Parts: sequence; structure tokens; C-alpha cells
Amino acid sequence: MTPNTARRRETSRRAILTAAFDLLQETGYAKLSIEGIAARAGVGKQTIYRWWPSKGAVIFDAFLMLSEATEGGPPTLPDTGDLAADLTVVLRATVEEMNDPRYEQPMRALATEIALDPELAAAYAERLDGPLKEAKRQRLRSAQQAGQIADDVDLGVAVDMIWGPILNRWLHRSGPLTAEYADLVVSTALNGLRPRRSAE
Amino acid sequence: MTPNTARRRETSRRAILTAAFDLLQETGYAKLSIEGIAARAGVGKQTIYRWWPSKGAVIFDAFLMLSEATEGGPPTLPDTGDLAADLTVVLRATVEEMNDPRYEQPMRALATEIALDPELAAAYAERLDGPLKEAKRQRLRSAQQAGQIADDVDLGVAVDMIWGPILNRWLHRSGPLTAEYADLVVSTALNGLRPRRSAE
Repeated sequence: MTPNTARRRETSRRAILTAAFDLLQETGYAKLSIEGIAARAGVGKQTIYRWWPSKGAVIFDAFLMLSEATEGGPPTLPDTGDLAADLTVVLRATVEEMNDPRYEQPMRALATEIALDPELAAAYAERLDGPLKEAKRQRLRSAQQAGQIADDVDLGVAVDMIWGPILNRWLHRSGPLTAEYADLVVSTALNGLRPRRSAE
Repeated sequence: MTPNTARRRETSRRAILTAAFDLLQETGYAKLSIEGIAARAGVGKQTIYRWWPSKGAVIFDAFLMLSEATEGGPPTLPDTGDLAADLTVVLRATVEEMNDPRYEQPMRALATEIALDPELAAAYAERLDGPLKEAKRQRLRSAQQAGQIADDVDLGVAVDMIWGPILNRWLHRSGPLTAEYADLVVSTALNGLRPRRSAE
């Protein structure tokens, strides 16, 4: 491949991914088609089929492109030494992002494709969710070392317990997704359901 | 409508819902079509379109028929007086159901349709998930009255925290869904992440 061919190819790839992301926001996932993406990107639909096996795979790569562009480096969580405060900041930001109409349709598309497609789920777990989960566990590990989390807590379960309720409430639309809800999730996860015998 | 017409109609309705559920298990949701359901049920596809606006709506009614047939009465959770033991039994049963290949495809279909369709999500929240959530809250309320859950715990958040991680792990295929995982979720939710100052 000559440098020019490689550059043209990369330009087409980005045009396709951008078109897919934009169309998702405009029309939603059910109406998204390879034909529509090709028309918007100004490429033939065979070009898309040559590089991606499904529209779910296109969406996945669009997310990957976006996350690389905005983050540049592995994700980290704030660590001020105050676990409750840091989790509150992070969960409120997550709630805000989930309520942002720009991300609504693309994130739903990705979530449902992952639910239906085991291969895509594996790619998602490895390339997008994995680094993020590791950053979450890392923040909890630091809290555990500081004595703010009990030694016998499984950090993977802790991550599921803090982020799971927010993700569920958003995905299944099972209730209002507010900063107050995020705060309650943080305090309930940290304190647990059982009555505490002694004040801290 | 004569009694005979009503009976024939109910027979067709059940045949369609059963066909939809069976086909889902065989082919998965992506390949499920109204044409396919009609052929399997032995009805014209116009009959289906007359009663349901989408394949998601058919699946929803199939679940409703199934849950009415198997449960007969509002759902309740076991209440032996020992909250941890009861939750462990219930969560292990949930994990087992989610790992049952018979439910895999239909439950994924329902979950993804709810994620994409706000109207279906509202119907699901009211008719299927609502009564179940109320049963869960009721069990926690009884524990709260018995002093096993702190007075200031929001029971809605508690329900999300106990069942959310299991549902997520299943839907996003983010890790093995085992009895051990269910047990860890119960103990972590009850005890919280913070170290406990005094033994119980």
C-alpha cells in the first residue's frame, strides 16, 4: 500500500465512522442502515461491508475512535484521598453524560448490540470497558490500601455495585436518573444495607 | 363478537405468542420476523400487524402470557426472617434462570427492545417489572421493620444495588454469572464497602 492509498483509506474510515455516529443521533439505531451510512459518508456500501461485518461493528469502532480522540491515554479516576467525594463527582458526571441527548442514541445502540452479539461483547470488554473498569478498580484499591474499604471486599463486585445501578436505570429507563440518585447509590454502596453498630 | 369468534381469536393470539417465543429460542432476535412468526403460527401476517405494532410488542406479550401462566397471582419473595439467606436463595435462582438456554434469547430480545423503545419500557415497568420490584421492596421493608436494614436506607436504591449487578453482568456478558457471584453481591450489598468498626 502506498502512503497515499493508506491516507485515503484512513480518510474514508473516519468519514464512515463519523457518518455512522451522526446518523445514529439523528435517526436512532432501528433506522440506521449500511446504505444510509455509505450515502452520508460519500462511499460505496461495498467499502463498508469490506471493513465491517455488521452495523454493530461500525458503531463499536465509532465509539473507539471517539474515546481515543477525547481521552488520549488510559482512563483514570480522580483520587483526592476522599473516596466518597471522588465517587460522587464521577457518578454525577456519568449521570450527566447519560442524560446528554447527543450520546443517547449511540450509547443505546452500542449497549443493545453488545447484549445480542457475544463477539462484539468480547471486543467491548477488552478494548473499551476493560481499561475503564481497571481504572475504577484501581481507585477502589487505593481506597482499600488507605483503610476506607474493608480488606475482604471483592473490588470487581464493588465496581459492579457502584456503577451497575446507574447503567441499569439508564438502559431500562426504570426511574429518573438524577444527581440525587447518584449520591444515594454512593452512600448506600459504601455503608451497606445493615444498620451500623457504631458511628464513624 | 360471538363467543366462537372470541375463542378463535384467543386461540390465534396464543398460537402467535407461542410461535414467537419458540422462534426466538431457535433463531435469535436479529433473525426473528413477523413473516416467520405468522408462518409458524399458521396465520396471515396481517393478523399479527393488526394486533401488534412491532416484533418487540409481540415478544412483550409473549412474556406476559408466560408469567401469568407460571405465576398465577402477584409475585412474592421468600420471607423466613433471615434476609441474607432469603436473598441468597432468590439471587441464586435468578442466576440459574439467566443461565438457562431456553430463556437466553427471549430475555435478551426483551431487554434490548426495552432499551430502544420508551413505550415498551413503560409497559414493561408497569406490567412485568413493577409487580416484581414491589415484591422485592416488600421483602426489604419487612427486613427494615425487623431491624436488619438501617432505617435511612432507600429501598428502591437497595433493590437496584442487589439485582442490578446480576442483570448487568448477564446483559453485557461482563463476567461469569455464578452462584458464588450471587453470594458475593448479597454480602457486599448488606455489609457495604466501608470497614465495619464492630462485629455483629
